[in-house]
Amino acid sequence: MSPANHFELTATDGHARTGKLTTPHGVVRTPAFMPVGTAGAMKGMHWREVRDAGADIVLGNTYHLMLRPTAERIATLGGLQKFTGWNGPMLTDSGGFQVMSLADLRKVNEKAVTFRSHIDGASVELSPERSIEVQRLLGSDIAMQMDECVRLPAERADIERAMQLSLRWGERSRRAFETAPSGYMLFGIVQGGDVVELRHASARGTVDIGFHGYAIGGLAVGEPQAVMLAMIEEVIPHLPGDRPRYLMGVGTPEDLLEAIRRGMDMFDCVMPTRNGRHGVAFTRHGQINLRNARHADDPRPLDEESEWPATRETARAYLHHLVKSGETLGAMLLSEINIAYYQRLMRDVRDAILRGTFDEFYQRTRSDWERGDIAPRST
Amino acid sequence: MSPANHFELTATDGHARTGKLTTPHGVVRTPAFMPVGTAGAMKGMHWREVRDAGADIVLGNTYHLMLRPTAERIATLGGLQKFTGWNGPMLTDSGGFQVMSLADLRKVNEKAVTFRSHIDGASVELSPERSIEVQRLLGSDIAMQMDECVRLPAERADIERAMQLSLRWGERSRRAFETAPSGYMLFGIVQGGDVVELRHASARGTVDIGFHGYAIGGLAVGEPQAVMLAMIEEVIPHLPGDRPRYLMGVGTPEDLLEAIRRGMDMFDCVMPTRNGRHGVAFTRHGQINLRNARHADDPRPLDEESEWPATRETARAYLHHLVKSGETLGAMLLSEINIAYYQRLMRDVRDAILRGTFDEFYQRTRSDWERGDIAPRST
Repeated sequence: MSPANHFELTATDGHARTGKLTTPHGVVRTPAFMPVGTAGAMKGMHWREVRDAGADIVLGNTYHLMLRPTAERIATLGGLQKFTGWNGPMLTDSGGFQVMSLADLRKVNEKAVTFRSHIDGASVELSPERSIEVQRLLGSDIAMQMDECVRLPAERADIERAMQLSLRWGERSRRAFETAPSGYMLFGIVQGGDVVELRHASARGTVDIGFHGYAIGGLAVGEPQAVMLAMIEEVIPHLPGDRPRYLMGVGTPEDLLEAIRRGMDMFDCVMPTRNGRHGVAFTRHGQINLRNARHADDPRPLDEESEWPATRETARAYLHHLVKSGETLGAMLLSEINIAYYQRLMRDVRDAILRGTFDEFYQRTRSDWERGDIAPRST
Repeated sequence: MSPANHFELTATDGHARTGKLTTPHGVVRTPAFMPVGTAGAMKGMHWREVRDAGADIVLGNTYHLMLRPTAERIATLGGLQKFTGWNGPMLTDSGGFQVMSLADLRKVNEKAVTFRSHIDGASVELSPERSIEVQRLLGSDIAMQMDECVRLPAERADIERAMQLSLRWGERSRRAFETAPSGYMLFGIVQGGDVVELRHASARGTVDIGFHGYAIGGLAVGEPQAVMLAMIEEVIPHLPGDRPRYLMGVGTPEDLLEAIRRGMDMFDCVMPTRNGRHGVAFTRHGQINLRNARHADDPRPLDEESEWPATRETARAYLHHLVKSGETLGAMLLSEINIAYYQRLMRDVRDAILRGTFDEFYQRTRSDWERGDIAPRST
């Protein structure tokens, strides 16, 4: 039996779609970009700025939160929304991906992943059942099944083994979620690396289990963009059209636009904040590296037509100075500028799909990026 | 001849006073606490938050700014206010104090201080004339004379030599400032360490030169609070009553309250932001160390009666988690909480002086601090 559907498709334009996902903490307009608040906080941003930038939903990392402050403590304090003050929808990952990429001394077997906590050195076990328990304690609106993700390139046998394990863990995750209160959601994850037949098999198997929504995992892990897009195209026909589709850990604005064009609805990525901390702005003119000396004497803003005050009003010379001086304010400003750009892009995409002008928007946005930054200021 | 007076005394209550200082970029209500935006930025705060917290004026550091991005570049970009986006009054120090405390290979002689730039290793000379030139290029509303400050405890001979040099440098600073546009101000600095006669001599000599306002420097540099307050009491009778009085680099809320009670009008200190970065909050209940485990499960805010949203709404448990996790948001929240507390204290002090209830306010505020934090939550 399929779980209840909380997704409503409003319009489609080609393969691109726009809709509304209703969660216990509010409605998420799709396509949606989810800023990543790893350990219960966005790096360099207040929650009010995340909200003002236009984000409906944010992502929290189960791995970090289960170790500190712990899921039990957050539950006692009323859940992630109450704990953090972000009073909107939250999606949490299963913790599996980050155990495998971050933790020491990890050991994967059929039952669970065992690893050593980087906080106190304790041995911690994360099973699909425990992952769902943790996510429910956190109060996530959308929980993710536990899966195993393989970095590419990888041997087919390794990809297949992880994909099959993910299906079994998906089944166990679903069972563990059965007693969750109505309205809360669990998404399945399609794995299979860059192998078309494995992607097909994973998609069929995951849909057979039955989830509130479906994610594509194991992409943007080292493969070229063309491979990522080809895998999306292979998976989507196997997913039910009435359920939300989430592309995990992706990506650049261009990745998002291409994935939306192929029918994806949700995204998350640390890129806007991480690149912001490294002095890079995402704008209508493409990516701009503020460390570059060409900005040192330039009083112009990043984009004088932007609706976001910091993008429209902050001098490039000031951003350059802040970045070169290692001032926190540089990371803060570029993080909000980047998150605002991602959210603005999602809003414009939604509007274009509603109006049936997605293709025109797609062409114009790509050509804006390709034209690149405004000419340096002549002195 | 005395320079023009831009300070207007509105009310006094005992020795405490409240007034208005009119600068080219706006009016400063005194007593005033000036948050420190060292290199053209507040650490962990947007300028809009500094403004919202109630600050009328901020301080910039000449030493940092002259090295990067350089005073000439800031002048070309329209001055500090335009460059940073802080569109209010700014005071800059002379750079001398920080050359002496931060720079390598410094050499002091009658003419100037010479030091090596920490940015590119270049040899840089800072004379009183150059300090004033830099501060005028920056567009400071209030420039400071160049002086030499001695850390305490120190030998009387060293204190006296530095005090006499400061008087000669004050004279040269004043001459260099003579061509400044009307409305801009230069403050003299009283030195003399913890030696009463030297403080008297310095105050008389500085007032003889004639400045728009007078600062007391060389305090909060290692001496007990009682010595600092005694020195203030010794200096103030020698300062003209109609000019603003600025206590440099001070201090805790208690230091401010005691100095205001003795007749001081202006303050600056990195303490609220620096302590905030280290997990300490300044509140009505005194200083609170959020690292303390007693806050880990406490859903209560720092002060439920505060007018500042972050102080009234953020759970102690969340702040504890952010501080323990090294999340930037912890430093950001505690910095704004602390700056807001300092500004609120100044506003309440101004109101109390206006109403003639300063002494009552002083007693109540001290007893609030002495009572300390609310009791830990029973579990």
